[in-house]
Amino acid sequence: MAEIEAIAKLVNQLSKLPGVGRKTAQRLAYHIISLPEEQVRELAVAIFNGKKQIHFCPICGNYTDTDPCAICGDDSRRKDIVCVVRDPRDVNAMERMREYNGMYHVLHGVISPMDGVGPDDIRIRELMTRLASGEIKEVVLATNPDVEGEATAAYISRLIKPMGVKVTRIAHGVPVGGELEYTDEVTLLRAYQGRTEL
Amino acid sequence: MAEIEAIAKLVNQLSKLPGVGRKTAQRLAYHIISLPEEQVRELAVAIFNGKKQIHFCPICGNYTDTDPCAICGDDSRRKDIVCVVRDPRDVNAMERMREYNGMYHVLHGVISPMDGVGPDDIRIRELMTRLASGEIKEVVLATNPDVEGEATAAYISRLIKPMGVKVTRIAHGVPVGGELEYTDEVTLLRAYQGRTEL
Repeated sequence: MAEIEAIAKLVNQLSKLPGVGRKTAQRLAYHIISLPEEQVRELAVAIFNGKKQIHFCPICGNYTDTDPCAICGDDSRRKDIVCVVRDPRDVNAMERMREYNGMYHVLHGVISPMDGVGPDDIRIRELMTRLASGEIKEVVLATNPDVEGEATAAYISRLIKPMGVKVTRIAHGVPVGGELEYTDEVTLLRAYQGRTEL
Repeated sequence: MAEIEAIAKLVNQLSKLPGVGRKTAQRLAYHIISLPEEQVRELAVAIFNGKKQIHFCPICGNYTDTDPCAICGDDSRRKDIVCVVRDPRDVNAMERMREYNGMYHVLHGVISPMDGVGPDDIRIRELMTRLASGEIKEVVLATNPDVEGEATAAYISRLIKPMGVKVTRIAHGVPVGGELEYTDEVTLLRAYQGRTEL
């Protein structure tokens, strides 16, 4: 059978997504084909726009569709406290707990010698530049409580403390070895409230 | 936090897909955003074209991007035998075993009184029209070996037999209660070879 090219292409594209194997991609493809054309158009447009309209905020490094992002540009938020996280997803996790009202700094990675990621490969230099303005009084290190996250927090702490800025680490209310992204709001709230100075 | 609209829209669209919950949709969305724009365009285009270029073959009812479909239009295939399946996916499953060389007829469903699906809601009438030409000598009923599949096969068999056409049912090599779509080629081959006349 000459497989239908448009379906083969769709299955191929879908199977590139994380956690989507060949079988799942086929199931998704046939589902998509069975949808009304308008719904499929919405999906395709959302995917394309999701990519096209999003870029990194020049200040915090989070995903944004404005310059600066909605958080950096929000005058009702505290400018003197910065929460350092690994990923944009972790900003979402912090925001979900509805307690933190400061700025963010997204590292886009953590120091991981095993993976060849050093301090210069993540946005630590940009953090230093922000701190140089003197406006920031506290840095909350909210990297994941795993080996790389702890090492990254320790590294950043050592860099910042000589500058006289208060450095805190979210408490281990977050299960050790866990992922910030999958932590529920209450646990994350405890972790934030129990943060300790490094 | 004013959630970024383009991301929220993407997550919303992705979470409509079967088997994709909110968490998975978020993971997929962030993955898509992190891809190069060219790859995202390919994905969006594949989704849109997958829908736009595909329609039902006027003869067999399978998905196709040509008229008639590649199988119905293939002169090297036998025209005197028709395999009746529930879904386009099942055509793929049959083709994967590389033994069957005849035509197909896709019912787009099975008789299921519980779900309010009667004989007139699936493509049985179209099958009768095809048989009326007299060209078809054998109908292989390859609906799934579950309650609805068996009932549909029995119903079609009763309709066709008075017309003097040979009616066969794929053997229960396919595990009872299983899905044709997830059956491996060897099992499906046995099921096909062991088909019995009804």
